[in-house]
Amino acid sequence: MDSEFRLEQDSLGEVKVPKKVYYGAQTERSRNNFPIGKEKIPEEVIKAYGMVKLAAARANHQLGKLSEEKLELIERVTEEIITGRLDDHFPLVVWQTGSGTQTNMNVNEVISNRASEIAGNEQGSHDPLHPNDDVNMSQSSNDTFPTAMSVAATLAIGKKLKPALENFHETLEEKSEEFSDQIKTGRTHLMDATPVSLGQEFSGYASQVQHGLGHLEDSLAHLKELAIGGTAVGTGLNTPEGFDNEVVSNLNQLTGFNFKAAPNKFEAIAAHDSIVNCSGALKTIATSLIKIANDIRWLASGPRCGLAEIEIPANEPGSSIMPGKINPTQAEALLQVSYQVVGNDTVINLAGSSGNFELNVAKPVMIYNLLQSINLLADAVKSFEKRCLKGVKPLSKNLSKYLNRSLMLVTALTPLIGYEKAAEIANKAHRESKTLKEVAVGDGYLTEEEFEKNVDPGSMI
Amino acid sequence: MDSEFRLEQDSLGEVKVPKKVYYGAQTERSRNNFPIGKEKIPEEVIKAYGMVKLAAARANHQLGKLSEEKLELIERVTEEIITGRLDDHFPLVVWQTGSGTQTNMNVNEVISNRASEIAGNEQGSHDPLHPNDDVNMSQSSNDTFPTAMSVAATLAIGKKLKPALENFHETLEEKSEEFSDQIKTGRTHLMDATPVSLGQEFSGYASQVQHGLGHLEDSLAHLKELAIGGTAVGTGLNTPEGFDNEVVSNLNQLTGFNFKAAPNKFEAIAAHDSIVNCSGALKTIATSLIKIANDIRWLASGPRCGLAEIEIPANEPGSSIMPGKINPTQAEALLQVSYQVVGNDTVINLAGSSGNFELNVAKPVMIYNLLQSINLLADAVKSFEKRCLKGVKPLSKNLSKYLNRSLMLVTALTPLIGYEKAAEIANKAHRESKTLKEVAVGDGYLTEEEFEKNVDPGSMI
Amino acid sequence: MDSEFRLEQDSLGEVKVPKKVYYGAQTERSRNNFPIGKEKIPEEVIKAYGMVKLAAARANHQLGKLSEEKLELIERVTEEIITGRLDDHFPLVVWQTGSGTQTNMNVNEVISNRASEIAGNEQGSHDPLHPNDDVNMSQSSNDTFPTAMSVAATLAIGKKLKPALENFHETLEEKSEEFSDQIKTGRTHLMDATPVSLGQEFSGYASQVQHGLGHLEDSLAHLKELAIGGTAVGTGLNTPEGFDNEVVSNLNQLTGFNFKAAPNKFEAIAAHDSIVNCSGALKTIATSLIKIANDIRWLASGPRCGLAEIEIPANEPGSSIMPGKINPTQAEALLQVSYQVVGNDTVINLAGSSGNFELNVAKPVMIYNLLQSINLLADAVKSFEKRCLKGVKPLSKNLSKYLNRSLMLVTALTPLIGYEKAAEIANKAHRESKTLKEVAVGDGYLTEEEFEKNVDPGSMI
Amino acid sequence: MDSEFRLEQDSLGEVKVPKKVYYGAQTERSRNNFPIGKEKIPEEVIKAYGMVKLAAARANHQLGKLSEEKLELIERVTEEIITGRLDDHFPLVVWQTGSGTQTNMNVNEVISNRASEIAGNEQGSHDPLHPNDDVNMSQSSNDTFPTAMSVAATLAIGKKLKPALENFHETLEEKSEEFSDQIKTGRTHLMDATPVSLGQEFSGYASQVQHGLGHLEDSLAHLKELAIGGTAVGTGLNTPEGFDNEVVSNLNQLTGFNFKAAPNKFEAIAAHDSIVNCSGALKTIATSLIKIANDIRWLASGPRCGLAEIEIPANEPGSSIMPGKINPTQAEALLQVSYQVVGNDTVINLAGSSGNFELNVAKPVMIYNLLQSINLLADAVKSFEKRCLKGVKPLSKNLSKYLNRSLMLVTALTPLIGYEKAAEIANKAHRESKTLKEVAVGDGYLTEEEFEKNVDPGSMI
Repeated sequence: MDSEFRLEQDSLGEVKVPKKVYYGAQTERSRNNFPIGKEKIPEEVIKAYGMVKLAAARANHQLGKLSEEKLELIERVTEEIITGRLDDHFPLVVWQTGSGTQTNMNVNEVISNRASEIAGNEQGSHDPLHPNDDVNMSQSSNDTFPTAMSVAATLAIGKKLKPALENFHETLEEKSEEFSDQIKTGRTHLMDATPVSLGQEFSGYASQVQHGLGHLEDSLAHLKELAIGGTAVGTGLNTPEGFDNEVVSNLNQLTGFNFKAAPNKFEAIAAHDSIVNCSGALKTIATSLIKIANDIRWLASGPRCGLAEIEIPANEPGSSIMPGKINPTQAEALLQVSYQVVGNDTVINLAGSSGNFELNVAKPVMIYNLLQSINLLADAVKSFEKRCLKGVKPLSKNLSKYLNRSLMLVTALTPLIGYEKAAEIANKAHRESKTLKEVAVGDGYLTEEEFEKNVDPGSMI
Repeated sequence: MDSEFRLEQDSLGEVKVPKKVYYGAQTERSRNNFPIGKEKIPEEVIKAYGMVKLAAARANHQLGKLSEEKLELIERVTEEIITGRLDDHFPLVVWQTGSGTQTNMNVNEVISNRASEIAGNEQGSHDPLHPNDDVNMSQSSNDTFPTAMSVAATLAIGKKLKPALENFHETLEEKSEEFSDQIKTGRTHLMDATPVSLGQEFSGYASQVQHGLGHLEDSLAHLKELAIGGTAVGTGLNTPEGFDNEVVSNLNQLTGFNFKAAPNKFEAIAAHDSIVNCSGALKTIATSLIKIANDIRWLASGPRCGLAEIEIPANEPGSSIMPGKINPTQAEALLQVSYQVVGNDTVINLAGSSGNFELNVAKPVMIYNLLQSINLLADAVKSFEKRCLKGVKPLSKNLSKYLNRSLMLVTALTPLIGYEKAAEIANKAHRESKTLKEVAVGDGYLTEEEFEKNVDPGSMI
Repeated sequence: MDSEFRLEQDSLGEVKVPKKVYYGAQTERSRNNFPIGKEKIPEEVIKAYGMVKLAAARANHQLGKLSEEKLELIERVTEEIITGRLDDHFPLVVWQTGSGTQTNMNVNEVISNRASEIAGNEQGSHDPLHPNDDVNMSQSSNDTFPTAMSVAATLAIGKKLKPALENFHETLEEKSEEFSDQIKTGRTHLMDATPVSLGQEFSGYASQVQHGLGHLEDSLAHLKELAIGGTAVGTGLNTPEGFDNEVVSNLNQLTGFNFKAAPNKFEAIAAHDSIVNCSGALKTIATSLIKIANDIRWLASGPRCGLAEIEIPANEPGSSIMPGKINPTQAEALLQVSYQVVGNDTVINLAGSSGNFELNVAKPVMIYNLLQSINLLADAVKSFEKRCLKGVKPLSKNLSKYLNRSLMLVTALTPLIGYEKAAEIANKAHRESKTLKEVAVGDGYLTEEEFEKNVDPGSMI
Repeated sequence: MDSEFRLEQDSLGEVKVPKKVYYGAQTERSRNNFPIGKEKIPEEVIKAYGMVKLAAARANHQLGKLSEEKLELIERVTEEIITGRLDDHFPLVVWQTGSGTQTNMNVNEVISNRASEIAGNEQGSHDPLHPNDDVNMSQSSNDTFPTAMSVAATLAIGKKLKPALENFHETLEEKSEEFSDQIKTGRTHLMDATPVSLGQEFSGYASQVQHGLGHLEDSLAHLKELAIGGTAVGTGLNTPEGFDNEVVSNLNQLTGFNFKAAPNKFEAIAAHDSIVNCSGALKTIATSLIKIANDIRWLASGPRCGLAEIEIPANEPGSSIMPGKINPTQAEALLQVSYQVVGNDTVINLAGSSGNFELNVAKPVMIYNLLQSINLLADAVKSFEKRCLKGVKPLSKNLSKYLNRSLMLVTALTPLIGYEKAAEIANKAHRESKTLKEVAVGDGYLTEEEFEKNVDPGSMI
């Protein structure tokens, strides 16, 4: 046997494990059995798992099942996990057993072996902490993995995505205010329509984001219901009375969030509708962002052959062949992220619907996609806000050039002369490349005074 | 000119329209210009449009813009629309202009022509009601169509889907209660696991549906924000002060629902995130139903070569070639509906993200898919509840046969002898086709009394 | 018993059936058991089923299992089904048993009862043709339904979608030719880029459609593999030797297409990857159409505040409130159809992956979505080609106005003066609102002659 | 200025770049401007880009535009890129400009700076190779990036996915052969059906995979059309005559694949239907794999309370709480991968439909998802084949126990006694828990001899 390895054991027999790692036999089996892709179990899940193990150990102690000494060891090692110091010891990929069992065992093993090291015992001795009997006490993969999923997602939303969206919303509101007197042609069906202000356009974006935040918030209540205490199948076999509420209370203290014990553990283990629903909120937000990013890059299109109603920051040379080109790259990044989020939702739907009886076994792929969606949205929105939105400037000359050209100003005459006559004016002006006024006054529909009084873009918004 | 036709006129010129219909020039143009598919604008949208036109006419009257006489005519004809008596006069398909303009004009024209008939005037005379100036007064397609979408969807959810889901939930709860003492083997990863009761399994389904109802409820607040009053681009051009709130108040009186005027009309016309979000709630529910329907048909699989833990009603001969075959057809219908709902959500995402500037022009396809999802879910859930769920009966003999065989009962010994020894027992029993007791007691892990006391399925749930 | 009804019998007992219909007990059970939605089994499937029953009866006769007299009756009634004369007798919805068994029985019953009528016997007598023993001879729902699916889809593609796409492709080629000398600014990232001709843009669309046709063609080989002869589970139980090839040969004679017997019947019944794959080709085409429709409506945007590089036909008044407005409605219909096709593909994926063991039980929802996609694409492409594409005209004045403005003409100088100097020129011209020539020549990068010689849009395409 | 940094310059000004990296100003800008996610541009794209730059340099040399000395430098550095020695110098993420421009510049800069180093010149001197004028000669991001996409995907499919699927197919064929005499009950609708052999079931899986390979092969022709030579907008501005074919010929020599120059460069740059279509083939394969993986884990369900018709290898302890538990984890990993592939297809559809005019600007997200799908499918199929499929063993005792129980053997009597009587027998046997023979013979439908002769499972497959 290679001096780089040690032997560890699990219920199927002996396994050679690298000496330098804290993980043990089951983690190593999983590493060898699933050489699939490079996508690791997200670090957010590992950190959340650290918190869950800590909260569970405290509950076991509080309920008289775990000794003070063992608790202290678990506290010490989970602290190391939560702060990321043991990241290298969590090598498993997403594409493993669908319950995340080997990731649970990875956490159990790392805690056990690191504790052995602290206690001066041999790696793999499971002394003083047995990975199953002590670290996993009153727990199963089937309840801890979804608990870690919920904790990881809730924290990522609360600490990262919500602040990013709130800041984005605030800047949209500011821009809406700033642009409130920039009157411009509206566009419906991409065609000239009645006037709006640029500020009104941005108020629509702000309203979308605000609603998106509301939908996200709505999704959190279900997401915060934790499976912990259900153990293998939801019945809570091998847990002491009150365990679930103790763990939740410990987690709330650790995180500052208000998780609660799932009232029905069978659902919480066998289905992950809370993840499906949360992803639904994220894809709704992605849908809003597609609209917003597209509008902004279209408004900035040009500089000489596009709409050119706004200017956006020039962050980098845009082309390797066309000198001087500047492109709406932040919008493009945001769009690509949004497409990803919509597709991730499809993955989550499929995975979420695939449970059977007491267990959903597509847990890793669900949380991988959900966290990717959360993180990408947060990062992309933040970058877009900072490097594009903040720097948007109206090109007022172009705005008013278009505004005054638009035939749709004729709509203001409808209450006065009716839809049909107004249409005659607009059609003739279009056909003969004239202004509305030339036709309206020239053909005697109304006087110049009447025209001026009624066709005032400023009063049409 | 054919005696079957009359001539009508719109701003582009004359159009031949069948004499027997109330619709006019623009509807006929649309009929001819969009010979695409057979999917008509859903009747729920037409009825909702009738309500919107009625509520708008009352608001116009209240605000002094529309005469009593004109209002009375509009009231009379919209009543006919709402009750479905004019259904044949709404021939347009979903695949038309993305703003639904021709459907708005279809409603305007039918009201105008039917009113002319009532008044003894000629069809197409636009006397006494002009389709644009009177029926469409203070309105645009761009605000009335999304208003009708919201009203149609809200009513369909409130009157059809919610009651169906609530009833489904109630029956699941009843079944959960009824089956609470049917102890059985749990299954995780499709493999034998620790015991649960059949009632607990059903409680998980009930919990999923209850959460689904909550998500659906959450989605209604945004859905009930109405675009009305925004007219063409959200600015409310050509509407009298207070118009939006008057219309909404009239609509609430008509429907008994609590709609409100969208605080931001720009969003409400340019984006339909409320539809995207509502569809997200529906696909979450579909995801739950896939799990539930699959579980139930698997539990009923057999009768002699499957799991056969429950029996479901035999509603029809199951095979054209295999005599005596009975199949879980209600589950299959529910599954197919659920797949449709998930796919419709993809359509709605794409359509919802496609707006530009002041208008989303994929409105008809969005509401067509949303209403299909709502209606199919309601019908399928109702049928499944009545023709399958209600009749589910436990096959108690099989339940206990499996239960007593399961090696996973060994889990109850873990707190006593530890995970590793318990695994030895289970592995040996499996390898040698023995019972747990034979190995546990036979190999001296514990006494028969200890075994009996601890391995008691009834106390494991 | 009501005089409007008669009694029929199946293996579960008696059923009251309306007197005026040819269908029998099992169809009536299905009608009552699945009051779900309004989407009927598509008529293309019913007609294809007629062909399958006819081809199977001929094969049974050829193989000595069915008498001449019975064959003649089946020939006569299937002819009536294929030509649509019995459409009213096929009332079943999509949302039924996932094998389509009741639709197979509906066909069997209609043939049996109509044959009884022809023979002067009582409805429900099953004399002279028994629905199972004669009409369904050597068949099962499990093989005939997927056979009818394949036949229906292949015919719809071959007779409807392919011609529509070919015609669309041809018109795109014509337009590409027609616009070959309309030089214009290119646009990348929505920003001004080096020149192209309008004809080149349209050549890209033509190339997309041509590739799409190729992908569609590729998908047909698998689609044309027929399950017939597999009966219940793929083994061909109760079929005479050579039955599958006889039926296929008869079908090929009937349809003029070159179907073949699936070499593996187990796949053909338990999975419908050929449908999934075909839908994949359709969604690729939809994706192309979204690009094309968007480009065309953007090029036509305006008339005064958009790009306005082309003009498209004015087919209808565009707005109920804005007089004189014209919108790109054909493009909007095509876009909505394309979104539907992409979403239908999601449904088909889900359904296609849901089979277990010997049978996929999501057949009706798969063929419903596939046929909807085929039909909508065909109709929408045809309408768009006729009412929009054919009438596209370049607005040459605008094309050259933009062209001459574009700073990206500077790219032609790169080979001469290098990327960096060219960028300086473009950046300065942009900053100072000058022309390229003013900066390039004015700042002494090159002479006027050099500039004129190199910066020639006509030679840049 | 920090001693860890050097100054580099691009057309927008100076940028501080870490001294230890070869990339330059534009890469550094992108690194700073897109702090979004952790998903890097896949290394397959970087390697393919190395090949494209090499092939382009050779073409430029062959066409007399690039000196021998410059070519040799490019050859040397691209060799380093292709073999992965410079991987650390490609730090950019997927979520950047949608044309991949900064990744193209990343490659250009690394080649330029590494060449400067080799030549003993300063980093950033662009001497002897200018990133744009030399390394990017006759190229644009807009044609090289999609070329690199096509090359990367084609190689990954050809070298990784196809071999994995072919091997999978071969093992399925072997298993089908091996299990050809394991007769068992068929199952349709999850219910007992007529017999099949286990080998026949596996032949269906083999057939699915074979068809999948065919669909994948079909997709390659389009994928192998390369955009190279189109430069910025498809016109080939600034390329020498014949450049595209020279590059392609050089690439074919380098890779051993038969790429060809895209006949229409406008499509190849503005749309990526070839990627959309290829992803469609991948999701069809994923759909097949879901069916196969589900069947196998269901057949292996148990060991005592499931179907238990086959045994699969025990690769790891299955549960942290249930001792002795073994789970179908390879199937679960394959399922999760398959869900991901279906969702990635949604992303690719959205991105693929989003192009405007001369450019699709969602290129990075498309190739990221396509390569993830290819790699995950290859890895997961390979792992599943090796660690699960290879080890599948029939549990013959259970297979025949079920087989002999099944009431559906009655189907063999239909040709003899008709569907109706056969149904009576099956229904009575079910109701009264008797065997078919007891009823059939006992009730006098036929003699014992007749029964034995006809009801012989072995002759029913």
